[in-house]
Parts: sequence; structure tokens; C-alpha cells
Amino acid sequence: MSIQPGRRVGVAFVGMGGAVATTAIAGIEMIKSGSNRLDGLPLAGHAVAGMVGYKDLVFGGWDLNGDDLGAAATGHGVLTKQDIENGAQVLNGMKPWPAVGSAKFCKNIDGGNRIVAKDHREAVDCIADDLKRFREESGVDDVVVVNLASTERWPDLDDPTLNSAAAFERGLDSSDEAISPAMLYAYAAIKNGIPYANFTPSVAADVPALVDLAKQMNVPVAGKDGKTGQTMMKTVLAPALKSRALHVDGWFSTNILGNRDGLALNDKDSLQSKLNTKGTVLDSILGYPVEDHLVHIHYYRPRGDDKEAWDNIDVTGFLGQRMQIKVNFLCKDSILAAPLVIEIARVLDLAKKRGDGGVQEQLSLFFKAPMVKNGHSPEHAFGVQERMLLDWLGVH
Amino acid sequence: MSIQPGRRVGVAFVGMGGAVATTAIAGIEMIKSGSNRLDGLPLAGHAVAGMVGYKDLVFGGWDLNGDDLGAAATGHGVLTKQDIENGAQVLNGMKPWPAVGSAKFCKNIDGGNRIVAKDHREAVDCIADDLKRFREESGVDDVVVVNLASTERWPDLDDPTLNSAAAFERGLDSSDEAISPAMLYAYAAIKNGIPYANFTPSVAADVPALVDLAKQMNVPVAGKDGKTGQTMMKTVLAPALKSRALHVDGWFSTNILGNRDGLALNDKDSLQSKLNTKGTVLDSILGYPVEDHLVHIHYYRPRGDDKEAWDNIDVTGFLGQRMQIKVNFLCKDSILAAPLVIEIARVLDLAKKRGDGGVQEQLSLFFKAPMVKNGHSPEHAFGVQERMLLDWLGVH
Amino acid sequence: MSIQPGRRVGVAFVGMGGAVATTAIAGIEMIKSGSNRLDGLPLAGHAVAGMVGYKDLVFGGWDLNGDDLGAAATGHGVLTKQDIENGAQVLNGMKPWPAVGSAKFCKNIDGGNRIVAKDHREAVDCIADDLKRFREESGVDDVVVVNLASTERWPDLDDPTLNSAAAFERGLDSSDEAISPAMLYAYAAIKNGIPYANFTPSVAADVPALVDLAKQMNVPVAGKDGKTGQTMMKTVLAPALKSRALHVDGWFSTNILGNRDGLALNDKDSLQSKLNTKGTVLDSILGYPVEDHLVHIHYYRPRGDDKEAWDNIDVTGFLGQRMQIKVNFLCKDSILAAPLVIEIARVLDLAKKRGDGGVQEQLSLFFKAPMVKNGHSPEHAFGVQERMLLDWLGVH
Amino acid sequence: MSIQPGRRVGVAFVGMGGAVATTAIAGIEMIKSGSNRLDGLPLAGHAVAGMVGYKDLVFGGWDLNGDDLGAAATGHGVLTKQDIENGAQVLNGMKPWPAVGSAKFCKNIDGGNRIVAKDHREAVDCIADDLKRFREESGVDDVVVVNLASTERWPDLDDPTLNSAAAFERGLDSSDEAISPAMLYAYAAIKNGIPYANFTPSVAADVPALVDLAKQMNVPVAGKDGKTGQTMMKTVLAPALKSRALHVDGWFSTNILGNRDGLALNDKDSLQSKLNTKGTVLDSILGYPVEDHLVHIHYYRPRGDDKEAWDNIDVTGFLGQRMQIKVNFLCKDSILAAPLVIEIARVLDLAKKRGDGGVQEQLSLFFKAPMVKNGHSPEHAFGVQERMLLDWLGVH
Repeated sequence: MSIQPGRRVGVAFVGMGGAVATTAIAGIEMIKSGSNRLDGLPLAGHAVAGMVGYKDLVFGGWDLNGDDLGAAATGHGVLTKQDIENGAQVLNGMKPWPAVGSAKFCKNIDGGNRIVAKDHREAVDCIADDLKRFREESGVDDVVVVNLASTERWPDLDDPTLNSAAAFERGLDSSDEAISPAMLYAYAAIKNGIPYANFTPSVAADVPALVDLAKQMNVPVAGKDGKTGQTMMKTVLAPALKSRALHVDGWFSTNILGNRDGLALNDKDSLQSKLNTKGTVLDSILGYPVEDHLVHIHYYRPRGDDKEAWDNIDVTGFLGQRMQIKVNFLCKDSILAAPLVIEIARVLDLAKKRGDGGVQEQLSLFFKAPMVKNGHSPEHAFGVQERMLLDWLGVH
Repeated sequence: MSIQPGRRVGVAFVGMGGAVATTAIAGIEMIKSGSNRLDGLPLAGHAVAGMVGYKDLVFGGWDLNGDDLGAAATGHGVLTKQDIENGAQVLNGMKPWPAVGSAKFCKNIDGGNRIVAKDHREAVDCIADDLKRFREESGVDDVVVVNLASTERWPDLDDPTLNSAAAFERGLDSSDEAISPAMLYAYAAIKNGIPYANFTPSVAADVPALVDLAKQMNVPVAGKDGKTGQTMMKTVLAPALKSRALHVDGWFSTNILGNRDGLALNDKDSLQSKLNTKGTVLDSILGYPVEDHLVHIHYYRPRGDDKEAWDNIDVTGFLGQRMQIKVNFLCKDSILAAPLVIEIARVLDLAKKRGDGGVQEQLSLFFKAPMVKNGHSPEHAFGVQERMLLDWLGVH
Repeated sequence: MSIQPGRRVGVAFVGMGGAVATTAIAGIEMIKSGSNRLDGLPLAGHAVAGMVGYKDLVFGGWDLNGDDLGAAATGHGVLTKQDIENGAQVLNGMKPWPAVGSAKFCKNIDGGNRIVAKDHREAVDCIADDLKRFREESGVDDVVVVNLASTERWPDLDDPTLNSAAAFERGLDSSDEAISPAMLYAYAAIKNGIPYANFTPSVAADVPALVDLAKQMNVPVAGKDGKTGQTMMKTVLAPALKSRALHVDGWFSTNILGNRDGLALNDKDSLQSKLNTKGTVLDSILGYPVEDHLVHIHYYRPRGDDKEAWDNIDVTGFLGQRMQIKVNFLCKDSILAAPLVIEIARVLDLAKKRGDGGVQEQLSLFFKAPMVKNGHSPEHAFGVQERMLLDWLGVH
Repeated sequence: MSIQPGRRVGVAFVGMGGAVATTAIAGIEMIKSGSNRLDGLPLAGHAVAGMVGYKDLVFGGWDLNGDDLGAAATGHGVLTKQDIENGAQVLNGMKPWPAVGSAKFCKNIDGGNRIVAKDHREAVDCIADDLKRFREESGVDDVVVVNLASTERWPDLDDPTLNSAAAFERGLDSSDEAISPAMLYAYAAIKNGIPYANFTPSVAADVPALVDLAKQMNVPVAGKDGKTGQTMMKTVLAPALKSRALHVDGWFSTNILGNRDGLALNDKDSLQSKLNTKGTVLDSILGYPVEDHLVHIHYYRPRGDDKEAWDNIDVTGFLGQRMQIKVNFLCKDSILAAPLVIEIARVLDLAKKRGDGGVQEQLSLFFKAPMVKNGHSPEHAFGVQERMLLDWLGVH
């Protein structure tokens, strides 16, 4: 086991009251209280010098919904009543900070748990103040920010504001609408030397402007869109199909889920962001375009947070003969996501400690659309990604 | 593409009339005639110096069934009528050599295409003569033997005869029943400096006596039990489950198939050989015993050579929550197997050429129960196996 | 077996060159030539007095595509090369009549196999002439029309033109656009005393105006939308779930198919027609609304005419406990549809012979959205529908 | 709703502590206390004169395990903790009567909750005394016995003792081993005018001797083997396949379950009893033998009482073309079984009240291997069975 006792790290979630964040927090608090075991955490088996221990993580964060985390978690239905009683009671006393918005995005105030800043600069300052206060009040040695908020619409990536650090600064000055709320959080973190990860499909830090800034400031950043269920399977299976020379004629993927995420994806713009991060994985691994690669996500209430994916893969093998593979994954989205979020935070913190700034490509293993350094191509094959991470960690 | 024209290699199949052998031969003959493409062959995309070209392979072999290969292939129903007409007509003119048996195993002569030698030594000589004649008549530069015959019953691996090269020689002298027919073929090949691979679950060369002999003679050997469908999937998925810290509570695997293989597995002893090679894969990859790992194979005629596997995997994730993965693989056994057989032959030949004798662990990628050098543990994880092979080939 | 030799019946297909029509014709022609067996026909096992024999059916019809049926069938890929050689050669000599359109719908002439009439009345006359000529030239005793053409967009059912026979006649006089091409065919048949069935999701005869007309003329009509794959399963399973008091919380249905039908359904309007006929089945059988009943159809080329449906059903049983049923149907659309089309034609002809006109509810068994007499509610439960048909046939 | 208040009926379970019995009892007790709804009960929607109300059922029974039902239910894991707290607390105070055995079967006393009678006659008397006492102490008007005990080995049905009422009496006198424990319970009930149902695959009352006795005594009997999951589906789907002329080439059924039932079926003899009741269903419905009908049941612990069935059906349709249907049923055995057990008891009691004795064929809907009157053939088609029951009940 890998824990280095002593140093404590604060993790600030954008979207602290959501299902993934509350599950991650509950899991760690239950480990602290002895009612959860380490063995559901991907890196628990590896001793890595300098990496913060699970019990040394402390949580904070923002959410538009001001409910205490116990109430929020009960609403999500991921944690059992017993979980909350046996170890996660501490959630009952945790309340998210008000979400910070620039007036630019808050024309229609929704009355939630929100502070409206008069412009982008004031919003950024407000976020930075929250982080500073978090560090001081919790007494942690370092802080990491992880975005778990609802998916934003896809921005115009060609907008000059997003394409250089200098233009981005000017965009902040003018409260340019090209800069989305998620980008404000990312900027505030990076600018203050705080590692930042984006676990959602929102673009956030994945624009040249912020990648450059992270490099200049030598701050670790990573993203985007956590790779949990169907896409994870896809990146596991596709390399093997390629290795066996089984040509993928078509890959039909459908998903049903009934949680807040599913509902959000009923919004066409958010769905597009999600499909953007899911779409290129396959072609990149296989080395040729799969023309009939269809991905559908449907909001289907009976499942709640239990997500189900059904994939049908049509392959052609030797002598042109055709075969089919069908994968049916009955999974739990937040249960798959929460441990990844924790490991991402720990690795980003270690990168900071090692002085290794900019995009952390070794975290590709955990993302559907891995952020890469400028000029690099993302690696999607699961096994290769895993080797990249273990090599970076120094694990053999 | 990787072909080194000029040098020609003969591949002698034990079980030349079976579905896998006829499919492999047809595929290569169709490549020669231009009606099959290389892209169903796993190593077709890699240029490796010294490796024999696909068009430079020549085929021969033994079979108890004396039918010409066209008739045999028609019976198997794997090749289409069109395949045989467009490029595989040459099969109509190919006839397998009589299978060679020692009188020890042939008490009940079954009237097939068989030569009964009076004892083990005479049988071995007869096999060696066949190989010599094959080389001469076909004018190939080198020969490789691949076992594709029906699965034999599991031997007593503690029998001293099988545990040293010297004892094995004495066993041949006394026509010891511990030495099975498949071992006679393996011995004959190795003793004559001819690389040998075992694509079946039979033990064959996977005994210390023959592993030692191969090392002494510096002859490449590999095996055993081709990894085609369900086990292939298992070795692809299990490493990812481990990487994601998803604990496997149970893995239920069932198979239905209606070809000669399926029928043979209705024989309880042969089935046991198969299950032996399937069983340990999972525990080895995961690093803990999966107590509820069930594997069933059923003879089910409607499918013919089309095999179907259904797997249900029960996993426990973060916070002890349970999920399920189901994989339904509608595959074609011989179509998956044939290209692997071809690549195994090419790699073994290359090993011979490189002077690299003994067990070829880099071929683990193609086997359910990889043979390893004495003292080594087999590697089962698909991605790691692939890396081993590509490294050995010098492909990056 | 049920054949009454002697009397011969002509079946005229709207959409004669399509996959379903060519499969139906080929099947009957192969029965005539002895290379297909009766046992794939649902009513082959029942002897019913007066019912026309399978070998006494003769085929004709219209199609926008003027190719002979052999070429058309080859393009669809449903019939094998061997089918066409062994019994279905006659298709090579069959050519569809030009499709008839009113100028109202043919502003953009597409150059196909089409006759453009100057108005609705002329189009109707033209269709009637085709049917008259078909009867005379083929020498059949009676004729039946079956619509198998591509799905039309959903009309405005509240349009007065469609709501009484008299208004419809006026609409024909004025070439009212409320009257669709499929309605012109239906009208022409009914007006001339020829039984009419609609196997597509298009509304066609399922408007009060034409239902009334059929009743007035005492002409048998039936429809609509053949019940072949997923919906058939739904109407088989749902009654059993109801019987067992398993409450359906949600039913998620997805379909992938790659034939002309699938492509047409990529058109949003046509898809809506399809979903309209699929949607109400479940609520009607269960007796309560299934709020999460989702049905999706996706065009996915790798499958061609092979359609695949995946259904997930969430049910709640005793003590509120939840269970799941998943059904994966790998079917062949035209193979399932063709025998139904033949039986529908035979039953309609029998109804005519019996003097039983108007909507033939006993044919509900074969339709997703059964047409019913005015004031009736459709019966969807498969078992009840079957009993209705067998009772009408007098089979016990 | 159908309840006739006033008359109370006692239900005595053989195997009262098992998962099905405790679930049934809990369900009814929760209905009495208002925490369970009627809507999971198949006949709750039908008002039938004379039928006992759900709230008027009272429970008793025997079990080898003497634990109170609360403890037993907790062990089975079917009822939730919340179920037991909210309405099913009464289970904590219920204890099964000692199981009654004849010395003939109790050579190896296992120390459980058991009374060993010196011979068959004494055992029968002991069972009858239990039933008499149950009636008196609970003050019910009538009693019904339902067998839910573990499956017994398959008897020799040709044994003369089992083939006439008179021979059976002599067998009781001589404590003949041909008479199994389940038969002793059945005899004791029937002889005392108490209706008897057998929900297990054990033969029990399904021998001519006891069928005759039930007829002579005019006592209602029914059985055998509750039709819950996979076989229920089979009898729902097969009639539809027949109706559509889809020929069943093979039907492969596999089951995984991890409860006490599953463990018992690991015993080869008990499994055979189960397979006997499952096997003939298909051929009977289809009217032809399905040669490749395979049924497998596997004990697989991760599932506990959650049973999973996977079926693959190979069918041939029109023109000899082949299709596949796969059904994956994630069910809960006891949740499916318990409401059927309750309805069987209510219907048997009603039959008694109506003076309708002997085999109650109208209960076929609930059994895998319906008992029939001598000379009758069992009906297996789900829809037909349902019609039989509703007709008998007088429901339209």
C-alpha cells in the first residue's frame, strides 16, 4: 500500500453535490472510519513514493444546489442508507460553497446556491478566494480542483479568445462569452498554481489558451470526460480486435440511464458534447474509420443511477467471414467514476510535487478524450494507457 | 507488408483434413490466386526481416480421414462453395498422408487412413520419413509441424517417462503407453530439428521430457490450445477489470457449438483436457482465485462450425456495489483459428532461422495455455502477450 | 393441407420490386416448382374450405423501379443465388408495371418507372385499368391488392376529406393533397370490388372515408403495418407479464437494420409513421400507460436486410422487487414478412368469397396497428388475435 | 377485487422455512398490515364469488430447520430488512412444526427439526394430527397443503405400489420405500379431505395411486413444479413461434442461481427430477420433437436467490432461412413463485368449496409439468392455460 502519512491534500469539486462527488467523498470518509476497504481503488495496490494517502484527502467544493451532502446523496440513490449510517454520516454536515458565476451567464438567475460576480474577472477572483479559504481553513498542504459539474454546450473552438493565453486574458477583461463558466474555474485554479482535472465532457481547460497557461505556470492539468462504462469497454476490446485482424464493420452502442446526467443529455447541445468525446476513440485505435459507428444515449427513468450499455459489434474475419460480439454492461455510473476521480486527484498532486506541469498525458487511462500536450495525438488503447500511467508512477 | 520472397516453407499439419487446417490452407491458396486478402492475418501489417511470405507457404499433413481436402472442407461447411470455386480448387487435389499410429494405440483398427507401426520407434521413424519426403517432394527450404488433431485424453503428468528426455527415450524403446500419439509426432519433429506447435488442448510437447529435448536440440516449440473465442475475450477483459479494481465475484462461461470439436468434447476425458487449459487463465491474470469460475461447453448441432459463447461476469466495485457484464460472442471457430495457425508457423520458422530454440514464449498471444520455459510462469494478459510478440519481432 | 385446386387468384403488390414482395413471389414460385416447402407458411397446416391454394396464386404489381424482379431480388440480398437458380428463375422474366401517380404528387419527376396522371381521377382510373388487365391477361378468377410500398408521411387525420366517403369523392375531384398516393391505390381497389390490405405503416385505407367505402361496397380490407419482429415479440410477452402481475416500469426497444426500409426511416416523417403504429401496443395490452416505453430504429448498414432488435424490459414483481428481461432478436425482416403477406392475401380472398366485407379484424394477428370496424378497439394480444383468426377460419 | 370476507383458510406448507414460503407469508402479512399492495398477485384483479380473500389466509407448516421464519427469511436474503421491519415482523414469532419422517427414510438422523415415526402409517397419522391441530388452534374454516420442500429423487414410476390406491395402502402398511416422504404428506392431506398442491419437481401426488385416491375422496389436487422463470418464458414464446411457422431447430437454455435450490440441484438425482419436468414442454407445444433442446442449471453463488436464465433459440423461417432469438431473464425466483403459491392455494380451496375434486387441470398455468386427470394430456401453452383458468373462474 502506498500511503505517505503526514501530508494532507484538499480536493475541491466543481459540482460537489452531484452523485460522483458525494460517492467519492463518502468512499474516502468510510475508509477513514474503517467501513470501506481500499480494494476498490485502482492504484491502492501500488506503493508510490510521495503520493498522498487516501486518508489524507480532505474535500470541499461548489454546487448550485445548497443541500448538505447527506441529503444530496440520499437523493441520488447511489449510496445506501447503510453507507450513510456506517461511516458517511459526516456528509450530513458538509455543505457546498455557492457556485460562482459571471453576470454574463446569469441573466436568468435561478435562485440556487450561487454568487453572481459582476464580470469574469470578479468571478475568477471569487473562485480563487474560495480555494484560498479552503486551504487555510482545512489546513491542507496542497489543493487540487476537479470539475464534476453538468456538461456544458460545445463551444466554438476556433474562437481566437480560446487559442492563446494572451487572448484569453483579454477575453476575461471583456467578459467574452466565448469563455464558459467551466473555463473560469479552470483558469482560476491554474493561475493560482493549483492542479486542475476535468472529468466531464465540457471543454473547460482543453483549449490552447489554458493548455499554454498550464505549461507556462508549470501546473498539472488533465481531462477530459471520465472513461467509465461503455467507452472503457470499447478501448479494451478494440485493440484486441485489431490485434486479431478482425475488421470492425460497424459498432452500435446504446445506453440507457435515468440519473441527472441522463436528463441533461436529453438536451441536444449537451448530448453533442458527450458524443464528441465518445466518437473518435474507435477510429483512433483501429487505424481506419468505422463508418457505421453509432452511439446513442437515452434517458430512461426506471434505472436511476444504474446505467446499462448494449453494444453490438460486427466484425469481418479471415476469408471475409462475419461474426458478431455483443456486450451488455449493467453498471453503476457513479460507482465506476468515483474511484477514478480520487486517483486523478492523487496523481495530479504527485505531478505538482514532482514539478511536472502542463498536460498529464499519463492520466489518459481515465479519460474518454484524453487531453494531450500541443502537437501530440491522444492514446486511446486501454492497455497502452495503463502502461503509460504505471511507467510514470514507476510501478513495474 | 512483410514478405521475403524466395525462401519457401512447408507446413505439415497433424489433422490436415480438419476444419482449421483446410481453412488455413484455403486461405493461403486464395491469397496466392488473388481471391483472398492479407488483411485477415494478424501479422500482415508488420514487415519483419527474414519472415517467410504468406505466398511462400506449402502444405502437407496427416489425417485419419483420407478424403481429399475439397471434400473434407465441403463437409465442414466453413468454406463457402464460392471460396472453393474461386481460388481453393487446389484443395480438391490434395490428400492427407495416412496417420501414423503405434500398435500400442491401435488395438481396434478403425479402418481409416492409417499406417500401424509395430511399436513406438517404428511410428516415429515413419513420421520422420513423411516429413523428409514432404521436404524433398515440395522442394521447400524448411518445414514446420503444427498439431491440429482431435484432443487427446489428459495424461498422468507425474509419470516419470514424461519427465526427462532420457526417460522418454526409454519409454519409446518399450512403447510405453504414457507416451501418447501426439507426443510421437512432437518427438519426431523435434528430434529431426523441425519446429513444432500444438494448437490443441492435448498435452503433446508440453511435458518436461520434450521441453528439455527441444532445448537440447535448439528446436523452437510452442503451444498449447489456440486462443480464439471466449478465452481470448477473457484475457482481454480480465486485465481491464483488474486495472479498474473491479473484483470478479464470478465468471460464468457457456459455449455452444456443433462441429466435430464439439462432438469430441462430449467425450468426458477430452472435455477435461479442454477445461484444464481454460481454467487457470482468470486467476493468473487477476491475482486471486475466482471461486465461481464456471466453464461449460455443449454440443449443439444447429450451429455447425459457428460457435457461440455467452459469458456473465459478476463484479464488485467501489463501496461494495455490484455490477454485471455479459458478453455474447457469435463466432466462427475455424475462421478465428486459421490465421493464428499460419502466424504461429511463420514465427516458429523465423525462430529457427534466428537460431532461437526451445519454448517460444512470445507466441503466448495465440494460446490458451502458453507453454513456457522450465521455471517460468505463463503470461495470460492479452495486451502483455501482444507486447511480448511485437518486441520479439522487433516491431514498434 | 388446405388447397382447393382450380380457382386461381392474382395478387397485385404496390411495391412489387421490394424485398418483401420479391421474397413472397419467389417463395410461392419455388413451392410451385417443388424447391420450397409449405412449412414456413402460418396457415399451411389448416384445411379451410374455399381458401385458395398456394400454388394457385399469381403475381403482378407496380414499382417505381422498373428492374425485372430477378435483378431487384439480387439487389436486396434476401434470396440466395441458389434460391434464384432453383425455382425462382421465373423472377427474371417478371417486370413491375409503372407506378401510377397523380400530377399533384409528381412535381419533381424522378425519371423512374412511373406514369403521371393529370389528376387524382385519372390516376385512379389508370390503377383500375392495370388491375383489369392483370385479371384478363393472367386469367385469374379474382384479384387482391397488397400495399408493400415505402412508408408515407403521416397525414392530418382530422382533414374532413378523409372522414367520409362523400368528402373523399369530392377530394378526388379536386385532387386534394390530403389524399395520398397510397390512398389512391386503396380507393381504386375498393371501388372496383377488389380486397385490399396494407402491410406498411402508411395510413392508406385506415381512414373513416375508406373504411366506410369498403363497408358500403362490401369489400374486405385489412391493415396496417405487418407485425414481424420486435412488436410481434412485444405482443407475445406483454400479455404474459400482465397475467403474472409483473408490472412493466419501462420497455426500451432498439432496432438496427440496413435495408431500404431502414434508410427510409432515417427520414423523420416516415419514422414517425412507424413509431405511431408501434407505440400504443403495450399500453393497450397491459391496461395502464408505460411511461418509459422507448422505441428507436437506426439505419445501420452492416446488417443489410438482417434486422436486429434488442429489448430491455424492467418489471416490478411481488413485494415491489424488480427484475429485468432482455430479448435479442436476430431476424430477417423480409423472411418474416413474406409468408404473412401471402396468408393475408389468401384470407382476404376467402372473405370476399364468403361475402364478408369491410374491415377484417380477424387479420389483427398479422398487424402492428390492426384496422378495426368503426367504434371497435384493436386487439393487440398475440394469443387472443390468433384465436380470433382461427375461429373465423373455423379451425379448432 | 375479489375478497369474500369472513371465511378464513389455513395454508400449511411442507418446507415452511424456505425462501418461497417465507416470501409468500411475508407478502400476505404485509398486505394485512397495509405495507404491501395486492397488485403483484395474478388474480387480484378478478372478483370471483366464494374465493377466500388474501387477508383471510393463515399460515402454518413443517420444516426440518426449526428457526423462526424471521431468521430463516433473513438467511434467504429475499426479503429486505425493511420488509421485515415494515409489516413482516410477525415472521419473527412463527416457528415451523417439526418435519415428519418415517423411520424408513431416517436411518441417518440429521438432528434437525424432525419427528421420526416408527413406520409409514405412524408418519401419516402424525401429519394428519398436525393439520387437525392447525385447524383447531387457528380457528380457520378450511385448510390447504402446499409442498415447497426440497426436490426428491425421481422414483420408479412403474412400481406397482404407486399405481393403484389399493396397492398404495398396502405399501403404507409395509412401509414400502417406493413411497417417498412427499407422498406421505400428499396422502395424509388427501385422505383427510384437505386439498393438496405440489409446487416442487418431486413426483409426490402425481402417481395413479394418489390421483385415484383424490378422485375417490373428491379432494382437489394440483401440481407440479411451479412455472416461474425460464419455462414460463418458453411456454409463452413457443406457441407464437408455432403460430408464425418458425421451426425450432434448437433451444439452448442455461440457468445460474445461488440459492438453496441451486445447491440441491447440484445433486444429480434431484437435478434429474427438475429436468424431467422441464423437458417435454417444448415438444408438446410445437407438435414435433426439438432434438437439440438442452437445459442446464448451474449453482453459481454470486447470485444468491437472484436467478438468471439465458436462452438461445435457433429458428428456421420461410425459404429455410435461419434466425436467432436470445432471452436473458434476470429474475428473482422466490418473488416470482410466492404469488403463484398463494393463488394456487386460493383456487384449490375454491374447488373444494365448489365440490370439484380430483386433479385441477385449470391450474396448469402455474406448473411446469401440469398434473392431469387420467387419460388427459397436459396443456403447456401459456395463453391456452390462462384461458382454461379464467374460464373455470368464470372471469371474462
